[in-house]
Amino acid sequence: MISRSVADKMSAIVGKEWFLDTPEDLATYSYDAFLPEFNPNGVIIPGSTGEISEIMKIANQERIYITPRGAGTNICGGSVAKRGGLIMAFHRMNKILEIDPDNMCAVVQPGVVNADLQKEVARYSLMYPPDPASMFVSTIGGNVALNAGGPRGVKYGVTRDYLLGLEVVLPSGGVIRTGGKVLKSVSGYDLTRLMCGSEGTLGIITEITVRLVPLPPAKATLQAVFSDLDDAAKAVSAIIGSGIVPTTLELIDKVVLDVIGNYGGARFHKDTQGLLLIEVDGEDSLVAAQGERIEAFCRQRGAVEVERASTLEDAEKLWQARRTAFGAVASLRPNCIVEDATVPVKKLPAIIRTIVALADKYQLKIGVLAHAGDGNLHPLIMTDLRDKDEMDRVDHALEEMYEAAMAMGGTLSGEHGIGIAKNRFMNMEFNDSAIEIMLGIKKVFDPHVILNPGSFLSIYDQINEEKKWN
Amino acid sequence: MISRSVADKMSAIVGKEWFLDTPEDLATYSYDAFLPEFNPNGVIIPGSTGEISEIMKIANQERIYITPRGAGTNICGGSVAKRGGLIMAFHRMNKILEIDPDNMCAVVQPGVVNADLQKEVARYSLMYPPDPASMFVSTIGGNVALNAGGPRGVKYGVTRDYLLGLEVVLPSGGVIRTGGKVLKSVSGYDLTRLMCGSEGTLGIITEITVRLVPLPPAKATLQAVFSDLDDAAKAVSAIIGSGIVPTTLELIDKVVLDVIGNYGGARFHKDTQGLLLIEVDGEDSLVAAQGERIEAFCRQRGAVEVERASTLEDAEKLWQARRTAFGAVASLRPNCIVEDATVPVKKLPAIIRTIVALADKYQLKIGVLAHAGDGNLHPLIMTDLRDKDEMDRVDHALEEMYEAAMAMGGTLSGEHGIGIAKNRFMNMEFNDSAIEIMLGIKKVFDPHVILNPGSFLSIYDQINEEKKWN
Repeated sequence: MISRSVADKMSAIVGKEWFLDTPEDLATYSYDAFLPEFNPNGVIIPGSTGEISEIMKIANQERIYITPRGAGTNICGGSVAKRGGLIMAFHRMNKILEIDPDNMCAVVQPGVVNADLQKEVARYSLMYPPDPASMFVSTIGGNVALNAGGPRGVKYGVTRDYLLGLEVVLPSGGVIRTGGKVLKSVSGYDLTRLMCGSEGTLGIITEITVRLVPLPPAKATLQAVFSDLDDAAKAVSAIIGSGIVPTTLELIDKVVLDVIGNYGGARFHKDTQGLLLIEVDGEDSLVAAQGERIEAFCRQRGAVEVERASTLEDAEKLWQARRTAFGAVASLRPNCIVEDATVPVKKLPAIIRTIVALADKYQLKIGVLAHAGDGNLHPLIMTDLRDKDEMDRVDHALEEMYEAAMAMGGTLSGEHGIGIAKNRFMNMEFNDSAIEIMLGIKKVFDPHVILNPGSFLSIYDQINEEKKWN
Repeated sequence: MISRSVADKMSAIVGKEWFLDTPEDLATYSYDAFLPEFNPNGVIIPGSTGEISEIMKIANQERIYITPRGAGTNICGGSVAKRGGLIMAFHRMNKILEIDPDNMCAVVQPGVVNADLQKEVARYSLMYPPDPASMFVSTIGGNVALNAGGPRGVKYGVTRDYLLGLEVVLPSGGVIRTGGKVLKSVSGYDLTRLMCGSEGTLGIITEITVRLVPLPPAKATLQAVFSDLDDAAKAVSAIIGSGIVPTTLELIDKVVLDVIGNYGGARFHKDTQGLLLIEVDGEDSLVAAQGERIEAFCRQRGAVEVERASTLEDAEKLWQARRTAFGAVASLRPNCIVEDATVPVKKLPAIIRTIVALADKYQLKIGVLAHAGDGNLHPLIMTDLRDKDEMDRVDHALEEMYEAAMAMGGTLSGEHGIGIAKNRFMNMEFNDSAIEIMLGIKKVFDPHVILNPGSFLSIYDQINEEKKWN
């Protein structure tokens, strides 16, 4: 709980209209794209770095929990107030401060929506490569906090790879700057990258400088349909191993395709067990040649059908199935858990077989959607959170899936984050020495553990002396 | 000093022949490519992660300084024993453990020489992009510790961009693993990137997983000669701004070209004030087209002469001037200080003008060599360390140069590191809050400050309570 006097102080900093605490407001900010809900005690919407610094000084002194939140599209519970306190939102800090084509970079506030930045930089024939599925809603600040990936990651990497510099407000209220417009810097410890993916547990990101790349002049889009999912997975390895670096290499399995079909989306060849959606970009001639080679690879690996889009409209049609997938799947059962297992690319067929086997063993409906080109799987578990017995089976299946992924040299999260979704699995990937180092880093930035508590490393639970608060 | 009993324990871990402490051995390890010399008390050459863990346990308990050292090619004094203690060298841990073409990665021990890895992966038509000038000598472990760059950085980025995972021995003796063969991971704080560029101050890197890319099938090499250095710098901005991403874009000024000419290397057009060496790589047709466009850009910006290499031999000839540069410059005066100022690309002409003006103001001989495509300059100060008056002028010039670079949004080091070379300038780039966070991180990893003391953040001097040791 937050005392009246603290609430008044906070409210005075941002102005009354930007401090929300009616029951309706609290309910609105009680959830993100992960399922469980947690009511905050208030929502604060600062307008500047200076205001955030003032807020943090009070929060640090009064031990008020602060959970920063972009658009709340994360699916790991990273932006909900697990232990109450304030949600900090960034609607007001949503300006593109500068697009600098000469230095191929842009400077933005954290609340800028990813797609808005994409659109603006395209006017300079530039591209900001990270393209999370949530890009029409999610913000650059949230993308940095979660180190968001996206379909273009196969060729272009993730948010981290385009970060040049940050301004960050520390829990103490201190403001630091890391990096800047320079393309190369090795001064001091790499705080820029340390902040990226730290899920709002180390500091508040208030300004971001991102690197841009030339907008590729052409692209080719292909859809290949396989009657054996294993063949599709093997085609992925073949393409990656061939020296072609596709922009995008998405895989969708039959479970998901059937749901999409019933939902009114595209229909597929009757023998379809798996679909690959592949894109390459670059110079015209190159793109055409690579498109042909990829088509040949797919046919050699047993593709039943390959379609190649020659216009942007045709390409959009091919994307329709992929874009419809989440909506379609969400319509089937009350809830859909989007998982994020990631393995070395070569292990893709093996982890898919594991997931299919687990669905069978635990009688669950699990579809598979994957950024297959970088080994990043999104098993979609269609379930009902109210069904205790089914949820127990989901838990068992998840645990076994992550154990299998770990045994294959995988990771707990390719791009969705840890949040509260995977706290309990952290010791599968990290030993005690590594966890201790991470807890130590947390305490350096946030000694009173006021930022996004309960998330990520369950820091709050692990630092015993802090348990007495509130 | 190290007691006999500690030396005996250390020696027992690695075997007598791998613990060196004769005066000749100590002198051999007393310097790196930076100038000042510091004698260690001994040199220890471990053969395994297990041995390193044992060594660190003793070192941590007995407060023995350990300074890890790759090939000692760094030019910031990052691998010398500034306060005595042991140098840890990695000749024995020099194996390429695995090349995995399916997952496009390699796993190596820290002592593997960069060029050896390049050669081995090329047999699989793969490339490890980071190519520091020292690549025929320097090791991957050292490259990671310093986050080494290189001429290919314009297109391919730096060592950090190819790091997938690490095994690290902490000062406590604990062994942690970060990342692995997965291309995407957002589990926990990004310890992989935090280790990269930490200059041996946080832990001992004992295994490295690097990402590989397809070896580009073709390249084009161009040399453009300008009668005005400013025109050359502007041509750089024009090329970068055009949407072409060259692999390499090197600039050499007249001061350096004259030295190269006298040294017996290539001779240039009499009006030459600046030379650009430009390379593009990729598919055949693309490379040819980009080569033509770059030639046109250079001529439009006033190039007096442009040569385009059509064979690998011709390309090698064009590289000759660049490759000869360090040797030639080193022959001119007793010492050469290689600096590392880096600015946003657009500021390249401005920082070059600043350097020319400073050379004039302080009557110094300064040549300019630059990885111009990413704004990374290497001013070469030809000087004599024994001349106190001249060194004072060098110090003033450096300070003013870095102040100018900072005002342009630059950084203290693009790729060479901080070491002991730029400790004193850290507060130009970072405020007290940022420095405090860095010191805090250091203490989390290395609470007794035994790793590479005196380097990087002058951590030792700033943590007062530790000053009583030894």
